[in-house]
Amino acid sequence: MPDPAQMEAAVHEYLRALNAADLDAVLALFDADASVEDPVGSPPKRGHAEIRAFYAASLSMKLTLALEGQVRVADKEAAFAFSVSLQHEGQQMVIRPIDVFRFNEAGKVVSMRAFFGPANIGTGS
Amino acid sequence: MPDPAQMEAAVHEYLRALNAADLDAVLALFDADASVEDPVGSPPKRGHAEIRAFYAASLSMKLTLALEGQVRVADKEAAFAFSVSLQHEGQQMVIRPIDVFRFNEAGKVVSMRAFFGPANIGTGS
Repeated sequence: MPDPAQMEAAVHEYLRALNAADLDAVLALFDADASVEDPVGSPPKRGHAEIRAFYAASLSMKLTLALEGQVRVADKEAAFAFSVSLQHEGQQMVIRPIDVFRFNEAGKVVSMRAFFGPANIGTGS
Repeated sequence: MPDPAQMEAAVHEYLRALNAADLDAVLALFDADASVEDPVGSPPKRGHAEIRAFYAASLSMKLTLALEGQVRVADKEAAFAFSVSLQHEGQQMVIRPIDVFRFNEAGKVVSMRAFFGPANIGTGS
């Protein structure tokens, strides 16, 4: 089983890497066959090529992420709430998702699901 | 698809019912065949009888729950962070989970998963 401290560290590294616009560091967190469902209900991106394209598009929106509260680690999964400020079509927006990461034995993310809906999207900061 | 407002209302009703120690109201939120995995990684409770026994035991610990931040509704699911203060073996404790509810077309919870680990359990308030 992946180590709880390792899973929590992966969450912090995910936020750091996105804030630094470090696409390679983001990708390094994911297993080669990982799936990313962001938001939940959308067609999952599968594998590094699709996941890289997704985060490249996201990073073009000048993301600033901040953790909200504790990272919750249970079994092989981690859940965490955060805010992400971004620029979309010239407007400053803030989205407040809860992400769930599932890890494999090697400590890589095999599944990422991002929970948010229209009620979690606002303008301004 | 269940209505987003209905799913968000179910989360608030869940917290209200637990704070009121209203076991019937808690059970009314769940489909007859629902599963409850609390915490994630433990054997799921399945069906109303097992779920009722689980919440009856929980309520004996004099729970006080408070939402932390927004409810995130996406597709047929809702995720939310909260704190739960309780009395366990004479000691006041606080646990900070993130729960994920999945709903059926009728708006009943068919799956509940509670994410928390040792790092989310503290003493005091």
